[in-house]
Amino acid sequence: MQDIDLLIINASQVCVIPGPSGPQRGHGLGELGLITNGAVAVHTGKIVAVAETANLQARYRAMKTIDAHSQAVIPGFVDPHTHIPWMGDRAAEFEQRIAGATYMEIMAADGGIMSTVRATRRATHDELVADNLPRLARMLQYGTTSAEAKTGYGLDKLAELKQLEAIYRLHQLQPVELTPTFLPAHAVPAEFHGRTEAYVQVVIEEMLPAGAVWAKEHDLTLFCDVFCEAGVFDVDQTRRILEHAAALGYKLKVHADEFVGLGGTKLAVALGATSADHLVHTPDEDIAALGAGHTVAVGLPGTPFGLAEGDYTPAKAILDAGGALALATDCNPGTCWCESMQMVMALACRYMKLTPAQALVAATRNAAYAIGRGDNIGSLEPGKQADILILDTADYRQLGYRFGTNLVHTVIKKGQIVLAPG
Amino acid sequence: MQDIDLLIINASQVCVIPGPSGPQRGHGLGELGLITNGAVAVHTGKIVAVAETANLQARYRAMKTIDAHSQAVIPGFVDPHTHIPWMGDRAAEFEQRIAGATYMEIMAADGGIMSTVRATRRATHDELVADNLPRLARMLQYGTTSAEAKTGYGLDKLAELKQLEAIYRLHQLQPVELTPTFLPAHAVPAEFHGRTEAYVQVVIEEMLPAGAVWAKEHDLTLFCDVFCEAGVFDVDQTRRILEHAAALGYKLKVHADEFVGLGGTKLAVALGATSADHLVHTPDEDIAALGAGHTVAVGLPGTPFGLAEGDYTPAKAILDAGGALALATDCNPGTCWCESMQMVMALACRYMKLTPAQALVAATRNAAYAIGRGDNIGSLEPGKQADILILDTADYRQLGYRFGTNLVHTVIKKGQIVLAPG
Repeated sequence: MQDIDLLIINASQVCVIPGPSGPQRGHGLGELGLITNGAVAVHTGKIVAVAETANLQARYRAMKTIDAHSQAVIPGFVDPHTHIPWMGDRAAEFEQRIAGATYMEIMAADGGIMSTVRATRRATHDELVADNLPRLARMLQYGTTSAEAKTGYGLDKLAELKQLEAIYRLHQLQPVELTPTFLPAHAVPAEFHGRTEAYVQVVIEEMLPAGAVWAKEHDLTLFCDVFCEAGVFDVDQTRRILEHAAALGYKLKVHADEFVGLGGTKLAVALGATSADHLVHTPDEDIAALGAGHTVAVGLPGTPFGLAEGDYTPAKAILDAGGALALATDCNPGTCWCESMQMVMALACRYMKLTPAQALVAATRNAAYAIGRGDNIGSLEPGKQADILILDTADYRQLGYRFGTNLVHTVIKKGQIVLAPG
Repeated sequence: MQDIDLLIINASQVCVIPGPSGPQRGHGLGELGLITNGAVAVHTGKIVAVAETANLQARYRAMKTIDAHSQAVIPGFVDPHTHIPWMGDRAAEFEQRIAGATYMEIMAADGGIMSTVRATRRATHDELVADNLPRLARMLQYGTTSAEAKTGYGLDKLAELKQLEAIYRLHQLQPVELTPTFLPAHAVPAEFHGRTEAYVQVVIEEMLPAGAVWAKEHDLTLFCDVFCEAGVFDVDQTRRILEHAAALGYKLKVHADEFVGLGGTKLAVALGATSADHLVHTPDEDIAALGAGHTVAVGLPGTPFGLAEGDYTPAKAILDAGGALALATDCNPGTCWCESMQMVMALACRYMKLTPAQALVAATRNAAYAIGRGDNIGSLEPGKQADILILDTADYRQLGYRFGTNLVHTVIKKGQIVLAPG
């Protein structure tokens, strides 16, 4: 008998989500490695073994045992695309959209994102941290144990660095691990209106180097992301920013094809970006490129839903092409204020026609690869970090089928129970 | 100074949702009676006064005071259309629908609702109660303080009465008040396949009288509801059932126009039904009838969303006609397993183009009138029952704008705090 910290037993299902290193690709998406009457052994924050209950009970003696009778056990959700931290809200803009204004119209009128930029610039570091802690608490409550967090509401050097500092502090203050992304090219700030190219030069010459210094000081690798979109940054500007970023040691991400398919996805694949995100109006040749490359396609179905638009990421075409598909919330105050990956799964099942199994893998294992952390999180394989959810239901398929509420019962982060009812 | 039980003070907003007796109609929908820095005085389970904080603090001395600083206060949600209680789940059917099968195809193949009927018939009273208590707990957690609950998964006399008994018991066991509806004409049971008219005779001759006896024994008025739909019960059958029901003392409801517009809504208005529900494919003349009559139109946007269908209740046309519009979950295991009226509001804002204010009134005051309880619940007017929500946000408009999570902080039912964090 081996002594361990934690043993979860009697789970109706344990969804291991196994595989060789890498995301599940193409129609291979959805392999769960389902174990009925399953158990998970945890020690020093890591998963030690996953098997049937009787098997692990014969091998391990645990300090703490959780009986997960009639409960399914899955990996913690990984949310690979959020715009946390921000300040303010855009509820008034939401009312305008109901009256018929489009996102791009509101943005062109200097509303929309610029109101969030103004609020975020005005905020102190402490205000930014305090205002965003409840969002992370909510993410954790709904089962997200790791997430990506972007800058991009600063749009000047100091305000972007303030956002990076806030992400760093938020990461330290609560259980949801944050992977930071530097996104100074999220929009053209008001003071550069009509002078996009001049802003691109500032991004390349001042902001990227400043972010790289910050990353070195904090001993971490940053992602760099660009909003490649009609009326924002074109493919050539996106390429130049990302090439400079890569030379400075950043890993890469791209916002591509949210409203117009410009070629941002093909560019992402060509540059070896870790992920290309949104992918709603993605041209066929860009979808083909995803199949041949290593870039993870990240669908964000909360955004078309948030905007009440009809077009969603073409999951079937991406899977047909052999691409790797992940899901994320895109949590942001403009188009999709939703912290719940369960809601994202429910949307993906309905509007991207993923099965609950496919949506679950896309929200865990593949999402982890979309932020470069697939070797450490996203599945319940021995050696990985013990980020585990115990659900309020015996059948993982109720994720997706049921919607609008929270089916997470217990959240375990690095082997510690960080959230449980009562 | 008057002594009272409870005083809520300092609310960023109190949404009173006032009006003369009756639902808010037509483009009058959405009047909130917003009080900033508001307060609510409660005594012996009822609302005593609603006004600015300084005003009520000068008049009342409370046993308990709640400081709702930076929090909006609204009436408890009323959910006027649910299919609680049921047994079993239909997650497997959900997977089949992702593969392309339609609800009516699954139903025609004796799957779908019949699997829920089989499970519900097999269950004992105690099992039915135990299995449905968590659903009501979840409704309460998401802010529903009163709801309608239907039979309709029994489809024989004993099983329908068993469902009525379960509703009665569930009402007693927890805080969400349940208004019972008798729905033996929810579907044609398998043993009457191809003999709909014979089943209608059983409903009229045996089941309605048995339900009426049960109602008398329990000293309450039952609603009677019929699923008027192509391939289920036609308009003539619906009329005959409802006329017999009315003669036996039932109040009336109709499931109309969910898939095909048959005239069920016009019939509902003509019979003086309290509500007509679904109303997705409602003919123009039926919409006009709503404007002239007293029947409340209940939109159930969770159902087209649950089925990933594109058509929703035409709210604008109903309001243009001067109709009274309410919202409900339709919570059921086949098409829409969602207990959250917040999710319903988010859907109504996006797909029915209601403003958050309109959606809020539809989910409270108007919903109360849709179950005949508008004079007692659904608004924060003096004399009404103290069913009150304190939100986790300063602005009620975040309901609708944000989605997929829970913005309810504290639930007060009949003046008692029944749910609060920590």
